[in-house]
Amino acid sequence: MRIDVDAALAAISFGPEGLVAAIAQQHDSGEVLMQAWMNADAVRETLTSGQVCYYSRSRRRLWRKGEVSGQTQTLKALLVDCDGDCLLLRVDQTGVACHTGHRSCFFTEIEAAGPREIAPVVIPPDQLYGL
Amino acid sequence: MRIDVDAALAAISFGPEGLVAAIAQQHDSGEVLMQAWMNADAVRETLTSGQVCYYSRSRRRLWRKGEVSGQTQTLKALLVDCDGDCLLLRVDQTGVACHTGHRSCFFTEIEAAGPREIAPVVIPPDQLYGL
Repeated sequence: MRIDVDAALAAISFGPEGLVAAIAQQHDSGEVLMQAWMNADAVRETLTSGQVCYYSRSRRRLWRKGEVSGQTQTLKALLVDCDGDCLLLRVDQTGVACHTGHRSCFFTEIEAAGPREIAPVVIPPDQLYGL
Repeated sequence: MRIDVDAALAAISFGPEGLVAAIAQQHDSGEVLMQAWMNADAVRETLTSGQVCYYSRSRRRLWRKGEVSGQTQTLKALLVDCDGDCLLLRVDQTGVACHTGHRSCFFTEIEAAGPREIAPVVIPPDQLYGL
């Protein structure tokens, strides 16, 4: 079925820089993997390719998740929140979501005594990026 | 145990407006409930009170979640992402998270043909806000 990308884009309130926040969640486990940003082109590419594409604010260009590391995200569902300014991507994450090699970017819990890492490195960064 | 709020704040990279994105997730089911913003005062209050407090960008003041509707969020865990600019709040949500009366703000799925509501209103807004 053809995807009506224009209808999708019309449901999203992009901010003054043309960006919308996007949360990636592993579709079956419910684990929150990461938060990043998308512009209209990133939403369009994600919906048509089925592979998640963000917009990198630091590099100022489309960021095809896993384009270097191979740690891609396959889109399972795309949801938009009540005021249209945040997306929830239900994805199937290959390997790890975080550039540090942790499964999720949220591997640091702020406990009473201070921050503490609560999850291990799954794939060392030198393996992810061939450093 | 005393909470070291300064250590917590030092682990967070607040943006140019002094805000950090915060994702609320139901701690046991994994459901993503909403995304909002916090400033340092909101983080401090949340950590010390155990009840989630955001910063409302539209009202430009602290937003004690549920202060009007009674739909509060009790903090179960606070996590920070790899670059410190997004928080994940694991919470126990009383009732509904969304001002529309849906359990989660993410009740609209963008399907191939366009947006479609996939979750019901649990508590009508007039009951939430006594309109």
